[in-house]
Amino acid sequence: MAEEGEGTLSLVLFSGTDDKLTSAAILAVGAAAMGRKVNIFLQYWALDAFRREGIREDHGVSPEATAEQAEKVRAHAEPHWSENFASAKELGEVAINACPHSMETLGITVEELDPLVDGVVGVATFFMNADGPITFI
Amino acid sequence: MAEEGEGTLSLVLFSGTDDKLTSAAILAVGAAAMGRKVNIFLQYWALDAFRREGIREDHGVSPEATAEQAEKVRAHAEPHWSENFASAKELGEVAINACPHSMETLGITVEELDPLVDGVVGVATFFMNADGPITFI
Amino acid sequence: MAEEGEGTLSLVLFSGTDDKLTSAAILAVGAAAMGRKVNIFLQYWALDAFRREGIREDHGVSPEATAEQAEKVRAHAEPHWSENFASAKELGEVAINACPHSMETLGITVEELDPLVDGVVGVATFFMNADGPITFI
Repeated sequence: MAEEGEGTLSLVLFSGTDDKLTSAAILAVGAAAMGRKVNIFLQYWALDAFRREGIREDHGVSPEATAEQAEKVRAHAEPHWSENFASAKELGEVAINACPHSMETLGITVEELDPLVDGVVGVATFFMNADGPITFI
Repeated sequence: MAEEGEGTLSLVLFSGTDDKLTSAAILAVGAAAMGRKVNIFLQYWALDAFRREGIREDHGVSPEATAEQAEKVRAHAEPHWSENFASAKELGEVAINACPHSMETLGITVEELDPLVDGVVGVATFFMNADGPITFI
Repeated sequence: MAEEGEGTLSLVLFSGTDDKLTSAAILAVGAAAMGRKVNIFLQYWALDAFRREGIREDHGVSPEATAEQAEKVRAHAEPHWSENFASAKELGEVAINACPHSMETLGITVEELDPLVDGVVGVATFFMNADGPITFI
């Protein structure tokens, strides 16, 4: 059984659909509640979802979901995943940073990002803080 | 080189397509065969795939696969991934639990789940047992 | 903060789209640059993308991306992810191996694989070298 605080949970968030971001937020809250640091690195479509203007918009559901399944996800959209990430930050030590390569690829500027995002860090800095699991979502 | 039994392999199974579940089952069997504990947490579409009634049905292939690629997966469907998870449970210490948030979102009851599923546990309990890699599939 | 060289980064590459492979290559380069061993296991669509003949072809973008988003990925395709994996191999200790189950399912032979691939190893060997995070992409 893991001791409290064992190993930072590093999450590389790649996908930007609401089901995967909800799952990621649940893991972040759970890890923070158990006293683990959380080190989040936003890439591609997850980064796109964290833009200030669009964070509460509908970001769709994984393409594998049927229309009926997607409807169930939309019907249970509260609390929004962005609120869960905010809760995780209140509960524990949770850093959310953007990948500079993805910023450039998608043409996103720091000003466009939601205040939940702490900054932009390179992949070397990400790995400096990755002293535990590295989970790609 | 890892020592036998080093670190529980925690698998968060999110996707419910047959190719990803086959991959997950291969990892579970491999980890169990190497003496590692396996701690599986079923969410969303993977949880849906573990319903008793539908576990052997066709759950499709990742949406990125072409029709030709999907056909190859269907032609190599034996042993079924559910048999591989059963083998992993025989080989070692493998727990499969459902995420209560996903149960509620999809409207699935405990009685509907396949006997491979040991129970429903919260994310805090999942993290209590997560003393190694956390792999999201 | 992680010490240099802490724990092999094991990457199970499953998806074969150019955005995910670029993300995986960035993580491999970053880990190698930080002195960590990298242990890559190619399955399914990622394995298919590492065929010698097609490695530089367009492998598409995650199905969740819109046409406009996919266009941005295509416009930033340099350096190609295969060059980044080659750089990771120059920087550090990076092994890339193919999963025999996926080789058989897709009907791929060793001769068809790109020289970046070191060989074919079973899942038990993969786990023998997995003394750190196990990241599924």
